[in-house]
Amino acid sequence: MINETAYNLGSCRSCIRELFEYGRQRAEVVGADNVFDYSLGNPSIPAPKEVGEALEAILRDMDSLEIHGYTTAIGDLQTRQAIADDLSRRWGNVKAEELFLTCGAAPALTAVFHALACPEGEILAIAPYFPEYRPFAETAGLAFRVVPPDVPEFQIRLEAVEAMLTPRTVAVIINSPNNPSGRIYSRETLEKLGKLLKEKEEAYGHPIYIVSDEPYRELVYGGREVPCVRDIYPDTVVCYSYAKSLSLPGERIGYVYVPSCAREHQKLYAAIAGAARAMGHVCAPSLQQKLIARCAHLRPNLEAYDENRRLLCDGLRAMGYEVAEPEGAFYLFVKTPGENPEDFYQRAKEKDLLVVPGDGFGCPGYFRICYCVQREKIERSLPVFRILMEES
Amino acid sequence: MINETAYNLGSCRSCIRELFEYGRQRAEVVGADNVFDYSLGNPSIPAPKEVGEALEAILRDMDSLEIHGYTTAIGDLQTRQAIADDLSRRWGNVKAEELFLTCGAAPALTAVFHALACPEGEILAIAPYFPEYRPFAETAGLAFRVVPPDVPEFQIRLEAVEAMLTPRTVAVIINSPNNPSGRIYSRETLEKLGKLLKEKEEAYGHPIYIVSDEPYRELVYGGREVPCVRDIYPDTVVCYSYAKSLSLPGERIGYVYVPSCAREHQKLYAAIAGAARAMGHVCAPSLQQKLIARCAHLRPNLEAYDENRRLLCDGLRAMGYEVAEPEGAFYLFVKTPGENPEDFYQRAKEKDLLVVPGDGFGCPGYFRICYCVQREKIERSLPVFRILMEES
Repeated sequence: MINETAYNLGSCRSCIRELFEYGRQRAEVVGADNVFDYSLGNPSIPAPKEVGEALEAILRDMDSLEIHGYTTAIGDLQTRQAIADDLSRRWGNVKAEELFLTCGAAPALTAVFHALACPEGEILAIAPYFPEYRPFAETAGLAFRVVPPDVPEFQIRLEAVEAMLTPRTVAVIINSPNNPSGRIYSRETLEKLGKLLKEKEEAYGHPIYIVSDEPYRELVYGGREVPCVRDIYPDTVVCYSYAKSLSLPGERIGYVYVPSCAREHQKLYAAIAGAARAMGHVCAPSLQQKLIARCAHLRPNLEAYDENRRLLCDGLRAMGYEVAEPEGAFYLFVKTPGENPEDFYQRAKEKDLLVVPGDGFGCPGYFRICYCVQREKIERSLPVFRILMEES
Repeated sequence: MINETAYNLGSCRSCIRELFEYGRQRAEVVGADNVFDYSLGNPSIPAPKEVGEALEAILRDMDSLEIHGYTTAIGDLQTRQAIADDLSRRWGNVKAEELFLTCGAAPALTAVFHALACPEGEILAIAPYFPEYRPFAETAGLAFRVVPPDVPEFQIRLEAVEAMLTPRTVAVIINSPNNPSGRIYSRETLEKLGKLLKEKEEAYGHPIYIVSDEPYRELVYGGREVPCVRDIYPDTVVCYSYAKSLSLPGERIGYVYVPSCAREHQKLYAAIAGAARAMGHVCAPSLQQKLIARCAHLRPNLEAYDENRRLLCDGLRAMGYEVAEPEGAFYLFVKTPGENPEDFYQRAKEKDLLVVPGDGFGCPGYFRICYCVQREKIERSLPVFRILMEES
């Protein structure tokens, strides 16, 4: 009498989590120093010091009932206003009532997917994509269809998107800066995608939303631009989390932004609220809401990530690895050397170097490195990468 | 292309939330002092001082990455161990691996419901019941069937349960101390329910779980017993939240307890983890996990609630109201005087006295009072209750 889908999702862990657990076990055997674990995107730079100061001030100055009490399901107005102000400074014209606070980006995405789930509905993802999109979409009742990757540029193969759009397509999910490629979709890419979707919207007579998953929006190197998707294509819904930008991954605080330029935005916002309610959303954690009300404007200090990025990217390229130019997030996406990728991953694992094969991201023949680790570990891992290349 | 069920859930708010919002609006017109808002179960006693001290100590002593980082999806071992230790002191033999930490009781319930959802499956609730059970169950795909209330005792009508059990029944959800009745199911009631379910399990050849929703377990007056359901009926799953016991309703920290005596407990635990994952659960808020690791053993100081309880209960009874003896939680369930309950609610509302009609709890002809308010407000509301009775 137990739900099979839920059981399968609970008993077959994601390959990332499995590698991470394997790394922990190996650390007990050979010592944590000797495991080069590049598996998990867990921030390695601490939260900005203002975050700790703000938390202390809230606990010191505010009343316990106010700090820890229920907020409305959509989130404290003060918090939503602070986020709207921060977004408005960059994008212009974001209103508090367009925001719905969630327990991070994952429940933001599931609420949006459930809100868009109609019979026979389909959602397109662009490979490489974050693997959890698939169970999120399928559990919501949407068919999950994958657009093949645009190697080696990791933009979007628009002719493939065009061929896969159907009257049943309700949304396209994009993620830029991208996990796992570390690439940013250029303004040109997004404009072409927007133009295509607009044509199809007109042809099909219903909206096709872009669901823009943007947890890495603030993690960008070399002054590159992350275009505002809403301004390129109005039927956009943004999912965000403070996990990476404020190094608060465990705290579960994020939001959905449904801009009022999006078609049926009021109905969509209500459906997102209803879907969240049905999944047990009551409110985003209240202390973290108070924190974001004070810290929504903070930006991370990316110096450590940037150093890691250059060290790894330059180091691997010098050895002959083909590396997609890392523009954002904290991921490096590397072409697997040799004829047999499985063999490479196995050899890497035997040397306690843990990278995530691209298969789960819809992009076999590549692997992902999370460079949110200590620099010293990267330095010590480079010779291992060299040996792996020489053996390939 | 927007999901109708989600839209309806998001646009039709619960009647409790609607009353609460109405109260806020009235407060702006007539002043907060002149609105007697008994609508929402938002704790009115602050979190124990040890909670604030523990939060400050965590922020002072622990590393930012450790405080705010991802934990495993099931929750930090240290936190689960602290909870297991606390439960073991009362119930004996609770293990950390039987616990799954969630963002409060609501997502605990939805994960359990989804885990138990099989085609044609049914779940029984005992009126009066917490209204959100219905959308939680129905969205999971379970038929929601309501056992009529046992008035005026508010125990369980076992002959009605027996008549409603079918081979499709996968679970019975109970909530004791009960929202809205404030009653505790006695050991005798639970033993009879357990005996009946055991017979039906044997007859049908599959488990029928008791889902025991226990957020009010620690809010009990006069030394009354809240029996350990697991020891009466092994096929039990407990959902819990620290919202009420530690006055942390907004912080979203709770758990599911799947005891190893329950049939198929490993499969059920995995399915709960999988269902939670599909709904976007990543981990319970990490700072709150650290807090519970230090504070799981704390008990609330119920003095203020107890005073409110006696003041209201004695006061209303003296006026001629029939009040179910309030044993736990912070609710009073009162028989609506007069022939026309709607008329009573309307007159109460006109006097800015907001009580929740029992209809939404599956128990028309009664209303709920949340006495988690300031004592002084209760004192000033008593004359209004008197007038309402005299008019009835």
